[in-house]
This record gives sequence, structure tokens and C-alpha cells, in this order.
Amino acid sequence: MIFNLFLIKIFLMKKIALIPLLFTAIIYAQSNDQKMLADIYKFSLTKSTCYSWLDDLSNKVGSRLSGSVGAEKGVQYTKQQLETLGLDKVYLQEVMVPKWVRGEKETAYIMDNKLKINIPICALGGSVATAKSGLIAEVVEVKSLKELETLGEATLKGKIIFYNRPFEPENIDAFKSYGKCVDQRYYGAKEASKYGAVGTIVRSMNFRLDDFPHTGAQSYGDLPKEKYIPTAAISTNAAELLSKKLKENSKLKFYMKLSCQTYDDVLSYNVIGEIVGSEHPKKIMTVGGHLDSWDLADGSHDDGAGVVQSMAIVECFKKLNYKPKNTIRVVLFMNEENGGRGGKKYEEVSKLNNENHIFALESDSGGFSPRGFSFECDEANFQKVNSWKYLFEPYFIHNFVKGGTGSDIEPLTSKKIVKAGLEPDSQRYFDYHHAANDTFDAVNKRELELGAATMASLLYLFDKYGID
Amino acid sequence: MIFNLFLIKIFLMKKIALIPLLFTAIIYAQSNDQKMLADIYKFSLTKSTCYSWLDDLSNKVGSRLSGSVGAEKGVQYTKQQLETLGLDKVYLQEVMVPKWVRGEKETAYIMDNKLKINIPICALGGSVATAKSGLIAEVVEVKSLKELETLGEATLKGKIIFYNRPFEPENIDAFKSYGKCVDQRYYGAKEASKYGAVGTIVRSMNFRLDDFPHTGAQSYGDLPKEKYIPTAAISTNAAELLSKKLKENSKLKFYMKLSCQTYDDVLSYNVIGEIVGSEHPKKIMTVGGHLDSWDLADGSHDDGAGVVQSMAIVECFKKLNYKPKNTIRVVLFMNEENGGRGGKKYEEVSKLNNENHIFALESDSGGFSPRGFSFECDEANFQKVNSWKYLFEPYFIHNFVKGGTGSDIEPLTSKKIVKAGLEPDSQRYFDYHHAANDTFDAVNKRELELGAATMASLLYLFDKYGID
Repeated sequence: MIFNLFLIKIFLMKKIALIPLLFTAIIYAQSNDQKMLADIYKFSLTKSTCYSWLDDLSNKVGSRLSGSVGAEKGVQYTKQQLETLGLDKVYLQEVMVPKWVRGEKETAYIMDNKLKINIPICALGGSVATAKSGLIAEVVEVKSLKELETLGEATLKGKIIFYNRPFEPENIDAFKSYGKCVDQRYYGAKEASKYGAVGTIVRSMNFRLDDFPHTGAQSYGDLPKEKYIPTAAISTNAAELLSKKLKENSKLKFYMKLSCQTYDDVLSYNVIGEIVGSEHPKKIMTVGGHLDSWDLADGSHDDGAGVVQSMAIVECFKKLNYKPKNTIRVVLFMNEENGGRGGKKYEEVSKLNNENHIFALESDSGGFSPRGFSFECDEANFQKVNSWKYLFEPYFIHNFVKGGTGSDIEPLTSKKIVKAGLEPDSQRYFDYHHAANDTFDAVNKRELELGAATMASLLYLFDKYGID
Repeated sequence: MIFNLFLIKIFLMKKIALIPLLFTAIIYAQSNDQKMLADIYKFSLTKSTCYSWLDDLSNKVGSRLSGSVGAEKGVQYTKQQLETLGLDKVYLQEVMVPKWVRGEKETAYIMDNKLKINIPICALGGSVATAKSGLIAEVVEVKSLKELETLGEATLKGKIIFYNRPFEPENIDAFKSYGKCVDQRYYGAKEASKYGAVGTIVRSMNFRLDDFPHTGAQSYGDLPKEKYIPTAAISTNAAELLSKKLKENSKLKFYMKLSCQTYDDVLSYNVIGEIVGSEHPKKIMTVGGHLDSWDLADGSHDDGAGVVQSMAIVECFKKLNYKPKNTIRVVLFMNEENGGRGGKKYEEVSKLNNENHIFALESDSGGFSPRGFSFECDEANFQKVNSWKYLFEPYFIHNFVKGGTGSDIEPLTSKKIVKAGLEPDSQRYFDYHHAANDTFDAVNKRELELGAATMASLLYLFDKYGID
């Protein structure tokens, strides 16, 4: 009993002694984290290679549509660059991807009685070609897919359907406006075909009035092949013009010629680099962007930025001599734009190997000033993230929300996983998205680097503190 | 006694009854404010004229250096536009401004033995000209004003001093980097002249390596006129090149020819528009930007953006039929760039008229995505502002800090005044600042409009709740 009392006394004394110790430990951890984030941001703004990588990827490699020579050059280039970083592993993961080729540059015009007005268009991804002589037909303008039902086959048969619902300007998050319009692009041809339409054109997914047609994925869904109809985007200025002309003359005709073609699937790759975890090598934290782009430009924002930011994170950790507890895996996904095969393959292989992903982070919203992250996770982990907010505030990172994260990490289904997507400022994204002006000069070096630093910081914190 | 007890009882009952009423009132005020901000943002993103005004100001009026024809056209244009808004008063306030003219485009080259390398330069504001035949001399590169003292007259006499301390890239706020470099531009000539230097060139105030020389104000201070020496900015690429060449050959020479000239002061104007307050007409809330720009470009970011955003606030209030309690005064200040005479005159007149300013807001940091405000105010008002933070968060406005606000409102010295400066994202500002690329195409419509909405929201809240 005396012995027990003695133990209790010691225990109580220790507990008391532990309070300042514990307090010191918390403060120490905080200041350690603050110092680490300061080091990460400083490295990113002064020594990161990411902007130079993006220059190469945009200006030496160029556009990287799945199955193209550019995409393969992108695979080789990024693999080589990852190999210079002293990672534990760098390898390619095979994935079969679709190969769709635009062919000869599209031509289109409005034929208004004898007046011919040239119109900037581009085929949507996966579209079939028109006849070699092109397609000419009267136009029916609609604002929604639903309207087709109302108008019916009698009105739509033999016509080109013109989807012209514009972006809502009042949404603060530009992606909300995109989300509320993109059905016209994605399902437009499939739905119009059901009513006997011979082709579709869609107003570009863009707030601005300008002359760039914006391409993007579309799907014929389960239509039989003979029902596939040619589908293209027209610029917002052209959409305004066509709409105005149709009000003057509903019988005007629209001509377009598309020469695009779909070939057999070809072999391509996800590019992967790893730092093996010092404590939990089997717990995997993935960070990535997608290596493929559309074919009209370099894809500097979509998603060259995400690719080089992801590479910059492992560069930063290596150069700062930070040894992660968990395995950090950079994954540069192939074929996000027109198939998502890279993301699916990655999950498939991961499942086969019984891998345990605890965290996945994607950057695929452009290389603009970072504002925060969106998270897919349970409440406990979201609270954990929010407890780190004060660490990010000195870097003007304030916006931690729940929401969609990234389409390449979407297939990942580990039992316990936190997913995050970098959320940059969204206002300028659709000025460039899938258009010929998504080029290197549209990316600001510091904004890109701040994004990389913000991602590295989140990865560091999840690596250090784990997920709940 | 019974009567008193009765009163107390009634009082207690009322108090209890008041609790839900009070609670309802708070909720009601909150939801009213939320609704008002939603209306302001929606109006700004869908119906504001600010982008169209900026188009005119940039592309029809053009550059607006104080004393120039462009500045006078800017005065007339903005006055006319304010007159269309149905304000209670629109008027001009006379102010004498300096008139400095760049003259013939500058030429400069490095003369390295027989090799002549052309260099992009521009005279700094207020600089004297070189001789008509130009100025040629050996170059001494320094990184600070202090270094002159160390080198002394023996080294510096007869030389061109080349200030080449670059922007620190590691600062998160770009203005911090500017603040730590701009002494080279502002005081460089004045200090070098004391040691017998014959001219100065300064590395442009810019993070990027590019070919734009950035002009800006400089001061000869109290030097006697005969000691004034020509001073110019060179592009960051040219600064890197010159520095490299100097390492190879410290005896190389630099040639420059400046043709600039200072004329007598001329009459110009602040442009002012007012909505007279419905409850406190004598309490004035000022919102403004500066109408003058440098001469090399349209000054779309600096400060066309601030001008049209300020005009957009009163447009928004009028169109939403919001009748401010206090007098709202839009002030488009003249001569911020090279003298600050507009701001000083405004304060002078205000004092003469015994005016009472309770609030002043300036936008002079570019038309980029708004992130928050900086405030000059006491702790009580800063706490008040922070209690409104939740109202701004849906618009991604998070950053409320204490700090400098705006140089045009700086002279205002009302006894009790809250000053605020719009704080947009700073990363791209110095890509354009005072250079030939500060043009309309560098401004994103939505970012500009969001800035206007953010300013209008703050003004609304201060109008409604007053200052403490």
C-alpha cells in the first residue's frame, strides 16, 4: 500500500511535471510546422524547378493528347526529369488509351442567303468527321438538352442543333458555371442524334466573349455507331453572332467540315516516382496531375501546371532533406481528358497489389494563385485539416471546403483515404481551358510556385500527423 | 412599493420578451446584410459598367500622365460618365500638377570594346535629359544606396551608377519585395549625384526576367538643380546582361540618351461625384482611385482599375436603389504617380470646408482577384470589421489586416476616420506596373468586377453601421 501510494505520488508529480513539458511540446511542434512551411514556401519561390519544367513541357514537348507523339514525348521527358531527383523509384505504368486525331483544321461558315461568314470552330473530342464535302444544314438554337424534347423530331430532324446556354456570370466559383453548362458539350450530340439531327455545335465553355473555340470531351453514350453525328464547339463571339443572325433569318444554313478520326487504342503510360516511407512504407500518399492535354495548345494550365507542381513536391522534399514517414508517390496520369484511363488503371493495379492509399492529392484546376483545397474525407479528418488552417494563413490560403477533388484520383477506393484537390483562383481558368491560348505565357511563375508550395505543405502535414 | 414591484415585474417580463425579439432582430440584420452583399456581387458580375469604362479609359482615352492631353481627356470622360449615373453632384476640383514629358523614345546601349548591344530603357519620372548627343560613361554596379558610401567619390565620380538589387522572390506579398527595392529607383539619382556620378540606371521593379523597362517616380530631393543627373530604368533581362558583361569587362561603357523635360505646372482636376447621405449628409465616406497613369501604357491596372471600380460602387448603389445614410463621394484623384497633388488638394479643400470624413477607401493595387483589405483604424473599428468577415467569406474574401491603405487618401486627417485599401492578389502586379504592358488585355473582367463588389460591400457595411 505504501508502495502504491508512492507510485501514485510519483505519477501525480510526473503528471504535473508533464504539463509544461506537454505545453512546450505543442509549441515546439507548432513552431516546427511553421518553420517547415516557411522552408517549403521559400524553396518553392526561390529554387523550385517547376516553372522551368513547365516551359519545357509546353514549349519543347508541346500538346499531349492521348495517343499522340506529344503525349509520348511528355512521358519520356517527365520520367527523365523525375530520374534526376534521386527518388527511390521511377517507373512507367502501362495503360491503353484512345487515339482520336483532329486531322485537317476545321472550317465553318454561316450561309445567310448569299452572305458567307467564316466561323471559328473546333471538333469536340471523339467526334466523327463530316463527309469530305462537309455538312450543311439549317440550324435550331436551343438553351438546354430538355428543349429537344419539347421541339421534337419534326423540328429537329435534318438540322444542326446549336446549344447556346451561356455561362452564368453571377457564380463566384467559375467551376459552378462550367458545371451548369457542360452537359450541352458532353451529351449534346448523343441527345440531338435521337431526334434525327445531323450535327451539333455548342457555345464554348467560357465566360468571355472572344474568338477561341474550346474543345473538350463529349460522349455518344450507347448510341449505335451509325447514329454518331459530327459535333463541334464555336467561339462565344461566334455563338452571339449566329444567335443574332438566326433571329433575323431562321432559315440560314451552317456549314462545317470536320476531318477527325478515331483509331485503335494505343499503348501509353502513367509516369510514377516514389520516395519510400521511412516508417510506413506501405502507406501510400499520392500526388498528381494529368500529363495529357488537348491538342489545340500546350495545355500549360490544363494540366501542365498540375504535373510540374506534383513533381516539384518531391523535388522540394528531397532538397529540404525531408524524409517522409509514408511513401510519397507522384503520379502523372495519362488520358484524363478523353477517357480517364490512367486514373482507372492506377486504381486497378493498386488493388491487384493490395496497396493501402491513405491520402491522394490532385492539382487540375490551373496554375493560378492557390486559395485552398477541397476535401473528400470524413468529419474527423476535415476537422484535423481545419486545425492546420493557421499554418496556411500567412500564405493567403484560407479556403478549406468539402467537395470534388480530382478526376484522376476519383477511382481510388482504399477503405480509409483522404482525398484533396488544390483550389486555385478560378476566375481566369475558362479563358484558356481546352483552347488554343492555354499556353506557357498564360502562367505566372509565382502563382504556379505558390500552388506547388501549398500542395507540399498539406502533404507534409498529412505525412507527419497521419489520417484519423 | 406595490407599484414599483409591478413595474419591476413588467420590466422583467419585457426583458424576457425582448430576448427572442433581439435574437430575431440580429438574425434579420444578418440575413439582410447577406442579401445585400449577394445583390451587390450579383449586380457587379452581371450588370456593372466597370469593364466597359475601363475599355474606354484604356483604349479610347489612353495613357494619362499628369498634365498631358490624355489626363485631360480622362477627366472629361469620367466626369461625363459619372453624370449619367444620377448622382446628386458631379464636379471638378482644380489642382495644379507637374508636367513632365518623356520626349523622343530613349536609346541606350552597352559599348563593350567594339561590340554594341542595344538595351531597353525608359527615363524615370522627373528625370532631366542627357545632352543631345547622349551620355556615355563607365558603369559601377551596386546593390544598395549604402554601398555608395563605401565606394566613395574616388570610385563613383564621372560614372553611371547601376542599381541592381533584385526583388526578393521569397516574400508572399509582392508589395513587400517592391518596398525593399524601390529606394534604388526613388533616391538613386539623388544619392549618386552627391558622389559625382553623371547618371544612374536602375533594374526595373519586377520579379520577372523580361524586356520591359518600368518607369516610376524618383526625387532629386533638395539637391541644387545643377546637380540633377539623368536617371532611367532598364529591363530585368538587360540588368542581368549588363551585370554579366561587367564581370567580364569592368571598363565597358554605357550610353544613354534621354530627351525628357519638365515644364511649368499646369491646371488639372480631381473628378468628384456624390450621393448625399439621407441621414448624415455631413458625414463623408470617400472611395477612389487615381485617374493619372504613367505615359508608357494605358495604366489599366495602375490605376484605371481603381477608377472604374470606384465609379462602379455608386453605379451599384444607385441601380440597387440603396440610399446611403452618409454622403458617398467618389474621388478620382489626379497626379498620384508623380506628385500626389490631387490627394493633398482634396484634403486641403476638405479642411477649408470643415468637412468630416468618417471613412475613406482606395483601390490602387491593380484589378486582380480581391483577397481582402488593409485598414488604418483603431482596435475597436478593426474588431468591427472582423465581425463582418463571415459576410465576405462566401466571396473568397478572407484577408483583413492592418497596414497602409492608399497614397491618395493618406493626407486625410479627419479626427475620427477609418481608412481602407483594397488588397487584390499581388502576384502579377509587378509584371505590368509602370510598364508598356499595363494594358486593357491584362485585366480580367471578373476579377475587376469582384474587386468592385468587395469595395461596395465594405462601404455598405460602414455606411449602415457607422464607425465606432
